[in-house]
Amino acid sequence: MRMPIRAALLLSTVLLYGGTPAQASAPALQATSAATPAAKTIITVKTISPEVREISYANPPLNFIVPETLVALNQAVLDLSKDDRVKVVLFTSAVDGFFYNHFDMGQFPGFIRQVSATGKPLWVELISNIEKAPFLTVASIRGRAQGGGDELMLAFDLRYASKEKAIFNQPEVGIGLFPGGGGPDHLVRLAGRDRALEAFLSADDYDASTAERFGWVTRTLPDAELDEFVAKQAMRLATFDKTALIETKKHINAIALPTEAERLEAYHQFTKSVTWPGLQQRMGVFGKVIQDAGPMNVETRMGYYVGEGNRQIQESGRK
Amino acid sequence: MRMPIRAALLLSTVLLYGGTPAQASAPALQATSAATPAAKTIITVKTISPEVREISYANPPLNFIVPETLVALNQAVLDLSKDDRVKVVLFTSAVDGFFYNHFDMGQFPGFIRQVSATGKPLWVELISNIEKAPFLTVASIRGRAQGGGDELMLAFDLRYASKEKAIFNQPEVGIGLFPGGGGPDHLVRLAGRDRALEAFLSADDYDASTAERFGWVTRTLPDAELDEFVAKQAMRLATFDKTALIETKKHINAIALPTEAERLEAYHQFTKSVTWPGLQQRMGVFGKVIQDAGPMNVETRMGYYVGEGNRQIQESGRK
Amino acid sequence: MRMPIRAALLLSTVLLYGGTPAQASAPALQATSAATPAAKTIITVKTISPEVREISYANPPLNFIVPETLVALNQAVLDLSKDDRVKVVLFTSAVDGFFYNHFDMGQFPGFIRQVSATGKPLWVELISNIEKAPFLTVASIRGRAQGGGDELMLAFDLRYASKEKAIFNQPEVGIGLFPGGGGPDHLVRLAGRDRALEAFLSADDYDASTAERFGWVTRTLPDAELDEFVAKQAMRLATFDKTALIETKKHINAIALPTEAERLEAYHQFTKSVTWPGLQQRMGVFGKVIQDAGPMNVETRMGYYVGEGNRQIQESGRK
Repeated sequence: MRMPIRAALLLSTVLLYGGTPAQASAPALQATSAATPAAKTIITVKTISPEVREISYANPPLNFIVPETLVALNQAVLDLSKDDRVKVVLFTSAVDGFFYNHFDMGQFPGFIRQVSATGKPLWVELISNIEKAPFLTVASIRGRAQGGGDELMLAFDLRYASKEKAIFNQPEVGIGLFPGGGGPDHLVRLAGRDRALEAFLSADDYDASTAERFGWVTRTLPDAELDEFVAKQAMRLATFDKTALIETKKHINAIALPTEAERLEAYHQFTKSVTWPGLQQRMGVFGKVIQDAGPMNVETRMGYYVGEGNRQIQESGRK
Repeated sequence: MRMPIRAALLLSTVLLYGGTPAQASAPALQATSAATPAAKTIITVKTISPEVREISYANPPLNFIVPETLVALNQAVLDLSKDDRVKVVLFTSAVDGFFYNHFDMGQFPGFIRQVSATGKPLWVELISNIEKAPFLTVASIRGRAQGGGDELMLAFDLRYASKEKAIFNQPEVGIGLFPGGGGPDHLVRLAGRDRALEAFLSADDYDASTAERFGWVTRTLPDAELDEFVAKQAMRLATFDKTALIETKKHINAIALPTEAERLEAYHQFTKSVTWPGLQQRMGVFGKVIQDAGPMNVETRMGYYVGEGNRQIQESGRK
Repeated sequence: MRMPIRAALLLSTVLLYGGTPAQASAPALQATSAATPAAKTIITVKTISPEVREISYANPPLNFIVPETLVALNQAVLDLSKDDRVKVVLFTSAVDGFFYNHFDMGQFPGFIRQVSATGKPLWVELISNIEKAPFLTVASIRGRAQGGGDELMLAFDLRYASKEKAIFNQPEVGIGLFPGGGGPDHLVRLAGRDRALEAFLSADDYDASTAERFGWVTRTLPDAELDEFVAKQAMRLATFDKTALIETKKHINAIALPTEAERLEAYHQFTKSVTWPGLQQRMGVFGKVIQDAGPMNVETRMGYYVGEGNRQIQESGRK
């Protein structure tokens, strides 16, 4: 596997929430210190019933995906896959304002080093394990699903979103990266060529109603009804015969999912894109944007700030 | 071909509207006695014009598909395919409250024995004959399209549904069966992976507006406008050049239809699922549900009763 | 390549806006005289910014595609493809009431003779060049996109349509031709099998809202907001890294576009369809319809007049 470690290390040093000592005490960084034992609690598995479990994610305040997320989430999926009773697994967030957010860009070297037991990139293996899990994966989406967090969401079987509070954004192209986490591969099959192009190229915010219209989520529900709807759906499915549920899931998924080989190739293009000059050029500007506006403002107005950063780059190039 | 005849016979004896002598005089059973000569009138072919025909279905009161349905419908499709004048065939129901309903589960052994002249399961051959027919197949859907009846509908070229009166349900998974009539193969290509999963896994009722939003039907029309819309569309298409119509249909269908091999494999998985323990476990409970609530109540609130039966099974297992 | 030149010449002599001397001074014909030097101005390339260009089309009053359109448009696409600065190309119309309209049927022999430098039909090559262009192709659609003009539109990356003023129609099947310009191949992947069948078989008018619901366009915008939306989207995308934009476009397009081989086969079926008797039969009737109603009336009520012409043919056959 080709690992542009040097470029990624550079990225880690320079970009975004990454770690100069002066910033080490900022809340955003604290939350993403994956090396600390505390980080292992970012994934919590709850037993709703023998047949229904909930994997809750909490990496406050911005709910970034960090390398530990992949390890813990993959382990939870594998563990639940071995439990014959489990029929439905809910994926939720315990952090206000965010579902799963994007990869912590300051930890790219860590992500790129992550390899599964079978020698595949851990991210690719995680998505494969989710897709072939012998239970139904159901996302309850409140807050922002961004970057890798949105690509993770697209791998689930069913996706229910809060009409008022769910927002979707794929910022990769806007910061100069290739979106190689499988998201385009999933979305193009759901939304069609042009809408997938718009979503991934514009790097803009999409509200839940637009996402539903595009086929990005299965349904939207008024926020006040989301929890009850998801709970009822889960409890209903959990009473059905597991063989019937899973054989039917496998049949439909075999027709409509991108292959692992396709996702693997896309992932390799992503790791290569870390060395693209366009990204290097954007690092400093976005670092400054985040410093000026604050991480929370940037993360909750992603579409706007991606545009703003690029506008500044273009203006400076034109001077 | 592997035929789990023994299991199917067991099913026939025990399940649902199937035949104990005491139930033999119930309306539901009478209507589905395919062996009587009268049953041959369940399919009526009407000539609207030389170019437009209508195949009307009537198996009151519940409009179940019975083995005779497949024979008569296949023959009608083959006969009309030989008539060079025919350009459009409408598929309608003459029974209030139902389009084509699901297979009569009491007659599974009969279905499984049905083989076409070319040695394929008759159901698979019927769908193939519909899809390659040298005329346009247009469904006018008022009432419930359920199970095999919905899967039949998904094979037609155009599907127009009454906004108020059309309802869609695929109950198979909810009763422990694999939905192998081609429905998932069609719907996943129209609705996308997650919505096809939800429809086939939840075994719930879908109103016409949701079905339209999912791509399950071509259009919905207010009930008062449905007949006129379908008639106008049929008469318009019927004035066009047959070669242009059929070559274009063939071109689009070749890109987007599941193959016969794919449907055949799914069908074999369905026949195997008749022996799944999950189905056996549900037979008694659903038989009791139907006995208590009455067939008409169950068939017109399918989503609710599928949930209710499974809920009872789970509760009894937990005691 | 099989060229049914004789049939096409016949068509040219007899059909529609084609050229008897008596009609030579009609506005419709004047506008489509591709041989005159003036015709070279039908394509105008404007520089909005170094990164954003606009290809404006003007062939008043009916904005037909003529053989010169293919030559000029292909050249513009190739020229812009060589300019490294270009990231977004807008495709617009300067003619009120029409986006790109259908092929001028009086010039079919000219179209069929058009071969690219690589020996392919120029139309097929043009669509390929658009699809592999190293910039984003964005259509701003106000007025009617019909026939080949609509098929051209379907090849663009993003398609934004005026909610009030955009109308879509594929008349080919209604006049007895095979729609072989790639349109069905694109639309079936966006709208699903049945909706693509309806659109191409009915040859009827589709308003922008229906088109949006079918996935025929990316978005509709109120007419008063269309220009600003498209300009903002273009300017935003133009600030992004070109490598990120184009590699992502290529990745998504590779999954979802029909292949050139598929489009080539469809094109050959189109050229063969020029000899179909159904077309010959319709030529005289549609010529009379156009003569009686006037080209502008027919072109702006295409769905109605296609139906009316076929109705007359059927009635005359029944006498």
